[in-house]
Amino acid sequence: MTPRLQDAQVTIVGLGLMGGSLAAALTARRACRRVVGMARREEAVTQALAMGVIHEGTCHLAEGIGGADVVVLATPVRAIIKLIGEIGPLLPPGCLLTDVGSTKQAVVQAMQALPPHVQPVGGHPMCGKETAGLSAADSSLYEGATYILTPLARTSDDALALAREMAQAVGARPLLLDAPCHDALVAAISHLPYLLAVGLVATAECLANDTVWEVAASGFHDTSRLAASDEAMMLDILLTNRTAVRRMLTAFQDQLAGLAHLLETGDEAGLRAAMTAAAQRRRRLFQ
Amino acid sequence: MTPRLQDAQVTIVGLGLMGGSLAAALTARRACRRVVGMARREEAVTQALAMGVIHEGTCHLAEGIGGADVVVLATPVRAIIKLIGEIGPLLPPGCLLTDVGSTKQAVVQAMQALPPHVQPVGGHPMCGKETAGLSAADSSLYEGATYILTPLARTSDDALALAREMAQAVGARPLLLDAPCHDALVAAISHLPYLLAVGLVATAECLANDTVWEVAASGFHDTSRLAASDEAMMLDILLTNRTAVRRMLTAFQDQLAGLAHLLETGDEAGLRAAMTAAAQRRRRLFQ
Repeated sequence: MTPRLQDAQVTIVGLGLMGGSLAAALTARRACRRVVGMARREEAVTQALAMGVIHEGTCHLAEGIGGADVVVLATPVRAIIKLIGEIGPLLPPGCLLTDVGSTKQAVVQAMQALPPHVQPVGGHPMCGKETAGLSAADSSLYEGATYILTPLARTSDDALALAREMAQAVGARPLLLDAPCHDALVAAISHLPYLLAVGLVATAECLANDTVWEVAASGFHDTSRLAASDEAMMLDILLTNRTAVRRMLTAFQDQLAGLAHLLETGDEAGLRAAMTAAAQRRRRLFQ
Repeated sequence: MTPRLQDAQVTIVGLGLMGGSLAAALTARRACRRVVGMARREEAVTQALAMGVIHEGTCHLAEGIGGADVVVLATPVRAIIKLIGEIGPLLPPGCLLTDVGSTKQAVVQAMQALPPHVQPVGGHPMCGKETAGLSAADSSLYEGATYILTPLARTSDDALALAREMAQAVGARPLLLDAPCHDALVAAISHLPYLLAVGLVATAECLANDTVWEVAASGFHDTSRLAASDEAMMLDILLTNRTAVRRMLTAFQDQLAGLAHLLETGDEAGLRAAMTAAAQRRRRLFQ
């Protein structure tokens, strides 16, 4: 029997930016009965309690998820996958198990092996910021964000409805996708841009001319922003989404080689057409 | 005899975002005696007069630059180069001729052929915004920006001092660079990021899946921002800086291939090291 969110205990495992912000949003909006936070480090639990973003906290997994109606895994993706492999027997019957990891195929695959008394739904809220950690947690982080849900064939309608309700309760817009489609899309709009930002900073670094940093203006600032993302999080994302990321990297390399060729041959009409197509799409996209 | 800025007539040729903002800044700060605006289109002149950013305006080049102590060319780069070839005989003796174009080698080369009574100094204020045109002009656009100046061997100290004074008068920080060094640096921090943004938008477009635009979040927003830049301006920039841009494209392609290889081979330590180096540089750069 799946409860309504307002009657549920939500346990959040991992109190970094994403987990901490989810806890803060649920607590601030009184969206559920009780928010329990679980973190490996005692100090994180103490800090979350002091910030008032959780009602109760613990460093012991079994203690944190005892009595939970919803468990949200909010660690880097490879830790999420490891946790899914261990947590099954500890979860109360009917418990919704979801996550906020940025890749979904590997997560959903791990969820398939969960014992039948657990209700799994993959999740990926499309929000974040440069600064990692609980101190950067923000109860408005999820507001207006697309919150992707990837249910499994075994997921009950009630469990999916509860996952949707939680996404909406923190101000996000739930969007159902299957995991392979999700991973291809985020490879294009998130993981590829991250690698471009890393490559851009490395290229500027190779000039070995400190004036380059002095003249770097807003264009460089924005294009390179993702390079400052949390490395532990991004490393797990890239390594659990290698196939889709490689495909997007190849597609991008082809596009860039095409632009380089137009420039090399001085094909002004071709270059202008490519630039105009991109400009029109970008302007339409974010008006 | 070079006047002080406060006694000078400054004529700005081209009343788009850059020229209009320069006019607005000079007028608002009462930095010079008189600001004359010249544009091809009558409506631009009328609009600039109505906005109060120029004291006088004209569509006739000879009329606009008659009596000028400073002439600033503020059109796309290839139009700047064409103007430099025509304007020499029309300029009053001792007149400072400068520009706000984003590439400098081709501009400085054209300036070398100016008649000896003209004082040329290449210029590139490192500021701008997505929206082109006079309506987007902003008297604070230059505030805090690095304003690169590329004097020629023939440029007098007084003329260079006047160019510096004008940059400072609109709130920018003058920085002297030679033209080839300028072009290499901006290829890395501006023209390469632009091409990456264009390639990124084109790659996402190739997915032919409209959900990609729905899930595009702040990371994609920032990394793709430059793709919305004014195409006429960017086309001139790329075509007048082909050598440096191609060199940077090749350097970037090598960096990206390196990242792709680390991912392909699952070299976690190597990938982490590259990501950490970029993250640390980016965080140090924009704190």
